[in-house]
Amino acid sequence: MIETDEYFGQKSFEAGESEMLKRTVNLAFSKCGKVPSDADVLFSGDLLNQCVSSIYAIRDLNVPYIGIYGACSTMAEGLMLSSMAVASGFAHLSANSTSSHFCCAERQFRFPLEYGSQRPPTAQWTSTASGCIVLSNEKTALKITSATVGKIVDKDIKDAANMGSAMAPAFADTVKMHLTDLSLTPDYYDLIISGDLGTLGSALSDELLLRDGIDIRNNHFDCGCEIYDLEKQDVHAGGSGCGCSASVLCGYILPKLESGELKRVLFGATGALMSPELSKQGESIPGISHAVAIERA
Amino acid sequence: MIETDEYFGQKSFEAGESEMLKRTVNLAFSKCGKVPSDADVLFSGDLLNQCVSSIYAIRDLNVPYIGIYGACSTMAEGLMLSSMAVASGFAHLSANSTSSHFCCAERQFRFPLEYGSQRPPTAQWTSTASGCIVLSNEKTALKITSATVGKIVDKDIKDAANMGSAMAPAFADTVKMHLTDLSLTPDYYDLIISGDLGTLGSALSDELLLRDGIDIRNNHFDCGCEIYDLEKQDVHAGGSGCGCSASVLCGYILPKLESGELKRVLFGATGALMSPELSKQGESIPGISHAVAIERA
Repeated sequence: MIETDEYFGQKSFEAGESEMLKRTVNLAFSKCGKVPSDADVLFSGDLLNQCVSSIYAIRDLNVPYIGIYGACSTMAEGLMLSSMAVASGFAHLSANSTSSHFCCAERQFRFPLEYGSQRPPTAQWTSTASGCIVLSNEKTALKITSATVGKIVDKDIKDAANMGSAMAPAFADTVKMHLTDLSLTPDYYDLIISGDLGTLGSALSDELLLRDGIDIRNNHFDCGCEIYDLEKQDVHAGGSGCGCSASVLCGYILPKLESGELKRVLFGATGALMSPELSKQGESIPGISHAVAIERA
Repeated sequence: MIETDEYFGQKSFEAGESEMLKRTVNLAFSKCGKVPSDADVLFSGDLLNQCVSSIYAIRDLNVPYIGIYGACSTMAEGLMLSSMAVASGFAHLSANSTSSHFCCAERQFRFPLEYGSQRPPTAQWTSTASGCIVLSNEKTALKITSATVGKIVDKDIKDAANMGSAMAPAFADTVKMHLTDLSLTPDYYDLIISGDLGTLGSALSDELLLRDGIDIRNNHFDCGCEIYDLEKQDVHAGGSGCGCSASVLCGYILPKLESGELKRVLFGATGALMSPELSKQGESIPGISHAVAIERA
C-alpha cells in the first residue's frame, strides 16, 4: 500500500504514524482472511517514546498485546518472538508489526523539521513505512527455520547522524554468531539482509565480517540502501527506521520468496539503541541486531 | 538489597537507575550460582525513553537481549516471555528484569523534581526499585504454570496523576479473562496480585470485578499499596513504576512461596501506557495488565 498523505488523515504526525500502523496490521490480516482479534497475541513496537504508535493503533484491535522495543531491529525481534509463540504451541495465530515516520522520528531524536537543519552525508532518512507479518501453525509456503538473538554491541559511536556505524558491529556480531551456531557458510542464504545500515554501515559490516573470514559481499542486501533510489532521492546514506526493513521485508522480499525467486534469506534487522537524553549526558549509541531465517517450506 | 544513595554512585539519576538494574541482574544470577552470560536470553525493559536503563545495564553483561516495553507491567510481560522461552526449549536458562527510579520518572512523565510541584492525592510515588528473575529448565521449588496476555483497555482517563484509575480496568479485564480461560475461581490463588493500582485503583478494580460476579477482595494484594507504609510515608495513593511490583514480587512474594507460606499466586502487573507527547495532543492513557501464575511445584 502506498499513501501520499503523510498525516494519514490525522491531525498530528504521531497520530498519523499510528493510523499507518493500524492500516498495515488490518491489511496483513485481511490478506489471510482473518482479523487481528483472531490472533492469540500481537507483538509490536516502534521508535516513538513509550511505543505510542503501536499502542494507539492496537488499542482498537481487541487483541492480546505484547510491547517490544528494539529500535530499528523491532521487525526481527517481533518475528522471533511471534515464531517462538507459534512453534511452542502457546499461540495458534500470532503477528508482529512495527512502523516509523520521518517527521516523528526527526523531532524526537534530532531536530523538528521546522528548524530546517542541515544533514551530514552520514545521516540516514527515517522511512515513513510500516510492516506486519501474520504467523500461523498451519502449513504455509514460507517458514521461520531459526533465529539468533543478538547481544548489545557498543563501539563508542556518539554521532546521532551516523547510525549505520553504530549498528554495523552488532550486525556483524549476530551474523557471525548465527553462521557459527548453525555451522553454515554465507552462501547458504540467497540474501543476508541487514536492516538499515545504509551505505556506510553496510561497507563497515562487510569489512568487520571479512576480518573473521566471513565474506557476505555477494549476497549482502541492506534495506536502507534499497528502499530509496540513492542516486535520485536526497536521502544521503540511505533509509532507516523500524518501518524501513519491515516494509522492504513484507513488500519486496516475502513476495520473492513466495514466487520462488528466493529460496532462503536471513533477515537481520539492526537497531541503534539511542536515547537523546543519555546522549546529552555523554553516552554512546549501543547497537543490536537479531537474525531470523525465512525459507521456503 | 537496599541502597541509600539514589545515584547508585553515578553522575546522573538515569545512569544511577541503570547501575541499580545491573546490580539487580548480577545479584539474581549470583543467587543461583550463575552469571548473566550463562543465560540464553535476557528480557528487560523500563520506563525511561528508549528503555535506556535496561540497555546501558545489559550492554556490559554479554548476554543475548530482547527489549520489551509494557510500562509498569514489564515484570509480568518479561516473566511471561522468559517462561515461554524456557518451556518451549528455545532457552535453557532465561531471565527477565526491570527497574524504575523516582527522580527519572518524574522528570520524564511529569515535572523535574526541582520544580517542587505539588502532587494531588490520586498521585502515586514511582518506586526507585528493581527486580530480576532467573528461570531454568531444571526442576525447582517454584513453577510458572500459566499466563494470560492482556489486551489494551482505555477508559479515557487523561490525568497523568491518576494512573491507578487508568490501569484498574485492564487489571480487571485480564483477571477475568484468566479465571474464565482456566475455569478457576479467585480462591484458587492465595493472592491475586496487582502491580501498582494504589489505593484508588485497587478499589476500582475490585468494584469492576464484582460487577462481573468475581470477588477478589479477600485475596487481592496490590504491590503499590504494600511497598510503602501508606500511613507514615507521604506517597499519597501508593507506589508505582516497573520496579514497584518487580521488587515486591522478588523480595517479598517469592520468599513466601519458597517457604511454603504461600502456595499459589497470580501476578498481574499493571501498566499505564502513557506518553507525555500524546497526552499534550489530547490523548487518553491506555492501560494493560498481564497475569502470570506462580505455584509451588
